[in-house]
Amino acid sequence: MTQAARTISPQAQKIADSVERFVRDEIVPYEKDPRLGPHGPNEEMVAEMRDRARAAGVMTPHILDDGTHLTHLETALVLRRSGLSPLGPLACNTSAPDEGNMFLLGHVGNDDIKRRFLAPIVSGEARSAFFMTEPAADGGAGSDPSMLQTTAVRDGDEWVINGRKAFITGAQGAKVGIVMAKSEEGANMFLVDLPDPAITIERVMDTIDNTMPGGHSVVAIRNLRVPHGQLLGEPGEGFRYAQVRLGPARLTHCMRWLGACDRAQEIATEYAVRRRAFGQRLVDHEGVGFKLADNQIDLKHCELMIDWCAGVLDAGDPGITESSMTKAHVGETLFRVIDRCVQVMGGTGVTGDTIVERVFREIRAFRIYDGPTEVHKWSLAKKIKRAELTRLGETD
Amino acid sequence: MTQAARTISPQAQKIADSVERFVRDEIVPYEKDPRLGPHGPNEEMVAEMRDRARAAGVMTPHILDDGTHLTHLETALVLRRSGLSPLGPLACNTSAPDEGNMFLLGHVGNDDIKRRFLAPIVSGEARSAFFMTEPAADGGAGSDPSMLQTTAVRDGDEWVINGRKAFITGAQGAKVGIVMAKSEEGANMFLVDLPDPAITIERVMDTIDNTMPGGHSVVAIRNLRVPHGQLLGEPGEGFRYAQVRLGPARLTHCMRWLGACDRAQEIATEYAVRRRAFGQRLVDHEGVGFKLADNQIDLKHCELMIDWCAGVLDAGDPGITESSMTKAHVGETLFRVIDRCVQVMGGTGVTGDTIVERVFREIRAFRIYDGPTEVHKWSLAKKIKRAELTRLGETD
Amino acid sequence: MTQAARTISPQAQKIADSVERFVRDEIVPYEKDPRLGPHGPNEEMVAEMRDRARAAGVMTPHILDDGTHLTHLETALVLRRSGLSPLGPLACNTSAPDEGNMFLLGHVGNDDIKRRFLAPIVSGEARSAFFMTEPAADGGAGSDPSMLQTTAVRDGDEWVINGRKAFITGAQGAKVGIVMAKSEEGANMFLVDLPDPAITIERVMDTIDNTMPGGHSVVAIRNLRVPHGQLLGEPGEGFRYAQVRLGPARLTHCMRWLGACDRAQEIATEYAVRRRAFGQRLVDHEGVGFKLADNQIDLKHCELMIDWCAGVLDAGDPGITESSMTKAHVGETLFRVIDRCVQVMGGTGVTGDTIVERVFREIRAFRIYDGPTEVHKWSLAKKIKRAELTRLGETD
Amino acid sequence: MTQAARTISPQAQKIADSVERFVRDEIVPYEKDPRLGPHGPNEEMVAEMRDRARAAGVMTPHILDDGTHLTHLETALVLRRSGLSPLGPLACNTSAPDEGNMFLLGHVGNDDIKRRFLAPIVSGEARSAFFMTEPAADGGAGSDPSMLQTTAVRDGDEWVINGRKAFITGAQGAKVGIVMAKSEEGANMFLVDLPDPAITIERVMDTIDNTMPGGHSVVAIRNLRVPHGQLLGEPGEGFRYAQVRLGPARLTHCMRWLGACDRAQEIATEYAVRRRAFGQRLVDHEGVGFKLADNQIDLKHCELMIDWCAGVLDAGDPGITESSMTKAHVGETLFRVIDRCVQVMGGTGVTGDTIVERVFREIRAFRIYDGPTEVHKWSLAKKIKRAELTRLGETD
Repeated sequence: MTQAARTISPQAQKIADSVERFVRDEIVPYEKDPRLGPHGPNEEMVAEMRDRARAAGVMTPHILDDGTHLTHLETALVLRRSGLSPLGPLACNTSAPDEGNMFLLGHVGNDDIKRRFLAPIVSGEARSAFFMTEPAADGGAGSDPSMLQTTAVRDGDEWVINGRKAFITGAQGAKVGIVMAKSEEGANMFLVDLPDPAITIERVMDTIDNTMPGGHSVVAIRNLRVPHGQLLGEPGEGFRYAQVRLGPARLTHCMRWLGACDRAQEIATEYAVRRRAFGQRLVDHEGVGFKLADNQIDLKHCELMIDWCAGVLDAGDPGITESSMTKAHVGETLFRVIDRCVQVMGGTGVTGDTIVERVFREIRAFRIYDGPTEVHKWSLAKKIKRAELTRLGETD
Repeated sequence: MTQAARTISPQAQKIADSVERFVRDEIVPYEKDPRLGPHGPNEEMVAEMRDRARAAGVMTPHILDDGTHLTHLETALVLRRSGLSPLGPLACNTSAPDEGNMFLLGHVGNDDIKRRFLAPIVSGEARSAFFMTEPAADGGAGSDPSMLQTTAVRDGDEWVINGRKAFITGAQGAKVGIVMAKSEEGANMFLVDLPDPAITIERVMDTIDNTMPGGHSVVAIRNLRVPHGQLLGEPGEGFRYAQVRLGPARLTHCMRWLGACDRAQEIATEYAVRRRAFGQRLVDHEGVGFKLADNQIDLKHCELMIDWCAGVLDAGDPGITESSMTKAHVGETLFRVIDRCVQVMGGTGVTGDTIVERVFREIRAFRIYDGPTEVHKWSLAKKIKRAELTRLGETD
Repeated sequence: MTQAARTISPQAQKIADSVERFVRDEIVPYEKDPRLGPHGPNEEMVAEMRDRARAAGVMTPHILDDGTHLTHLETALVLRRSGLSPLGPLACNTSAPDEGNMFLLGHVGNDDIKRRFLAPIVSGEARSAFFMTEPAADGGAGSDPSMLQTTAVRDGDEWVINGRKAFITGAQGAKVGIVMAKSEEGANMFLVDLPDPAITIERVMDTIDNTMPGGHSVVAIRNLRVPHGQLLGEPGEGFRYAQVRLGPARLTHCMRWLGACDRAQEIATEYAVRRRAFGQRLVDHEGVGFKLADNQIDLKHCELMIDWCAGVLDAGDPGITESSMTKAHVGETLFRVIDRCVQVMGGTGVTGDTIVERVFREIRAFRIYDGPTEVHKWSLAKKIKRAELTRLGETD
Repeated sequence: MTQAARTISPQAQKIADSVERFVRDEIVPYEKDPRLGPHGPNEEMVAEMRDRARAAGVMTPHILDDGTHLTHLETALVLRRSGLSPLGPLACNTSAPDEGNMFLLGHVGNDDIKRRFLAPIVSGEARSAFFMTEPAADGGAGSDPSMLQTTAVRDGDEWVINGRKAFITGAQGAKVGIVMAKSEEGANMFLVDLPDPAITIERVMDTIDNTMPGGHSVVAIRNLRVPHGQLLGEPGEGFRYAQVRLGPARLTHCMRWLGACDRAQEIATEYAVRRRAFGQRLVDHEGVGFKLADNQIDLKHCELMIDWCAGVLDAGDPGITESSMTKAHVGETLFRVIDRCVQVMGGTGVTGDTIVERVFREIRAFRIYDGPTEVHKWSLAKKIKRAELTRLGETD
């Protein structure tokens, strides 16, 4: 049982409240903006929302002016509030992949990299993309990173990178790229200015989710030349850095989607209380009321799992196991929550009249993004086995 | 245990095989046609697919040239095959709402109505719409038909109809409308030529599904005047006729979506066998293989429930209870099936690269369309109670 | 879609009705008999119930006087009715393992074996046991028959058998044993008169189920000598014969437990209609009524799966895949059914005041007996993979 | 988000460790003691275990020598450890109903009542019973306390009580009784010395669980005369006092059963790692390994829910909603956990060879005891509705 200081500072609480007010008052109206297309909002709309966030003092709210972060526990509160609208994280700069990329560069980047690549992301001027996943059709790295096929070859003071990537969120429109490629030293991460003629967006995939500006792209990298100074950290350490990013990035996904489901529950509750069928309010039908009750319970233990994992990270542990447990649990649970919201609302639930339908689609994807649930269970089962073998004094 | 003649005639089997061949060979390629937008394929694309269906001899395949229908059991086979592509039913004219409307008019319409309104639907020249559901916001008829608010007032030889409708599938583009409205005699159905200036499409709703041409509309009816001869059957019998349509219409939904899931399972199986992760084929991971096994089992009992209910209908029973049980069961089960297909395919499962993602969205809506699962269970519970009270010799 | 003659003969229907009447009128009262202990009813009680069955003309009702069997489809009806009480199958001689053993000996045994070993089982004078499963602690054959460790060594005109067995249902009290043991020719089955001093019952296991007389035993076999004439069929063919028994035996389990759940649903329905809480009948609470509705749906598709599989067997197919699908599906589904019955009845559901609690425990075991659900899914997944590889023209 | 001091004192941690050591070393061996019958251990065995607990210094470990309690959060830790064996709570005096009764008397009893009735329970010399639930057949109070039928009539300085009770845990063998009965002032609780000739145990029910000594009884109360001084607190306040007991009592159930599932998971894990099938360790089959992974996740959020609710109680809130959410969630979740443990262990899982089978049965009952899950959801749904109506400024 973790006993780290599990408190939210008054400052963090205030930030969270500001973010909530901002999202509810200023961002919710954008949910019906016609500039929000199948691959997310267009650049104009993003810029407009971000200007509002700056004016409201809630741009990148989890990173303080001195560059320090809120604790993970505090971040959980702030990011959850930012997620009350699916557009909130984008507006406040708490969205994937930028949030994870900022965390990574903040922890591993040297001063030069922080200045050149991190600063414009933190300020919300630049968006970033993380080039890791590779196309299934090529037999490349999906959930199994050991299948990484993109190569980086040293050529004097430069690296030459070749390969193909898929599901690259926000590649279109990003100004900063972090490219994963293997060299003889192992895996590496490279910082890249975007766009770059050596990086071609072959197509933006049609995906079930559509909140991210730029959508998710399939990308070809052909003879991309990157100065050695843009290698993040040390050569061959790419997988280790990926782990630094991994735990927190998984967890912030959970935080944001928890907030989105909070809102969906509000919408479904109001619908169920106002609307009548068969002689009574919908909510008075146990078939409906029980769904809202289940949701209230489920939202609570998702919150508790997130806070628990945040506490582990705050205690300095990389939290790989804990974030894996949390991501798997929260992903599956929130899907049930949002599915119930849809069902409670009947026909209205499957229309774009409210955000419930959109959140349903986003969370369907979330069960796969950042590792399908099954990969997390597979990994947990391996750990359970190893621990038991150790206890028994046996080897496999 | 029903013991009706449960056989598929050689003729019906041949029709089913032709339909399958046609859908696989000629319609599957249209799945990537750019004319397929968020509210279904455009008119040009529909016309083109239907021309092919006529050429292949599979237009309205479940209605024979002499106007007779295949049995419900035979229809189950033919419509399932037509559903192997989400576009198949539209191409072959086995889709909702036309299929149900044809069934209704064939059973209740007089010769004049059959000639004027039914014939062009059967030939595939006209599409039709069924104006029953009303907007939730108005407190109108959703799952509870007794809340019907649209009115029909007799004025000489005409009826004057006023009201609002929602979720009117295919209203945009339809040439035939069946409008439900209440008069002092009770509920009524009226046949209407479309478009009509008294019927305004307020908006086409953005829905999670997008296979139906014309999508689903919110419609205002203002002083629509309909000659008395276009009243279907007798005044006040609208709910009874709705029941005639209800059982078969629910069931054909199940047939088509079963076919779509057959195909999704084929796609997911091929993916799981070809693709590798963590050192073996995906299918060799039990976490994946078990999902395909579960699907094989689930597809089988969905088929059996459909065939059972078809047998009840073929025996002359309206099958209200049986179609309710079947719709609830098949809807929920197929959703689990398609959800597993998505999950098996990982990232690819949530993209438009295959139809799996589309079928997932369609079947999410199917759990609500034609009565949310909960309404069917509510109705079943009432029947169970009444039967038990009768057995006990008690009254409520 | 199977199109075998799927009819119940008038004779079979009459048998089923007699069995139902007998079980309801004469066996249900035994459910509270104090002679029914933790390892099933005692011998006196078994004999008494069987005398009644003979008097009612329903002893071994699925095997006709001329030794022929009802079809599998007809058997499904008769055995389901016999299962309306957990004691019914024992009373009528339709219970495991006798039913499966009779089927096996009827199909594989020569005249001598039929006369000596089969006849007394059919007449209900002798009970039998099937010695196949081995103790987990020994690393013996559980779900994986290839792990068979019991040995049979030829010694002149006799075989000498050694090994240990577990979960041997009804070993205590059985007069006929079928022992599985491997020789250099492969697996074999031997017919044995019981009791035999070389077969020691080490202990009767305490199991969650307690309907079977004699319970489930752990047995040691030490230098058991069996004449060669008591080898069933040919040497080395034991696994093949096990397959003959396997499909039907799995399926008859499903039939009996379906009947037990029919009855549990009756009991739960009456309880929910009579009992009140929070101002209305329990059944009027959707949280209760929906459970009964779910059960009605689930009982139906279990019936349909059983009938489908019976049809496959009746068509002469060994039905290994179909019975595996059916057993896995029916086992898991009926567990949900009976779990709902328990929950509907609240505190009463977890007491021995009705059979619901007993059936709950029996069906929990059923999910494991005759192959845990997971083993069936594992086997199905292998078949799906092989079929797809064949379709693709690939090898593993 | 609760921010109460959420720490375990070193003293409490030490107590928890002692309890765990005691239960594992000294109580686990009693699990196979033949004195453990279908209605729990006999008195001799209880006394023997309690002597050991006293010797080990772990009798009533959550109540300190000065009569103060550990915090609820600390209690969660201690009671979970005591639950590592189903017999642990009984041995340590942390079991239901005594634990709840001690809490109630400690909070509501006057000095006389504490001395006469509480002290011997705390010391472990007396066991107690809580007479609240009434027989379903009488239409009495089950989940709906407003249906209370037992009456108390004032007669001079005494009360005369009449009625019937059911599911009275541990009535047989208890020395202290708390009897709920309604008078014209409302509901009341009376302290009673047991046995008393006016209280007849009609029968000890056969229930699926069998850990509690004395089992669960149906009891008749006929003209029981109780001095006014044995009325707990004030007349008519019985329901209010029931609420005092309610939250903590629900929660301690969760704590104990969480500990039991911890142990079941240990047993299943060892089994899955040691045992092999189909060429590998069971745990290497994802069908098994995923179950253990799911359990690890589920045990964690059950722990977190319990700790959260304990924090609410520690903050002085009665925690009615929170304990209802927690009880419903933990009950349903732990049932899935223990069901997976059973399934992982195959045939062994349904035998008494390990405690897994026993815990399975106990937790099945736990889903009903202290309010069936559905009653908690019903109550939550009501609260959600009321809160939303308030927010909307509407009335029902």
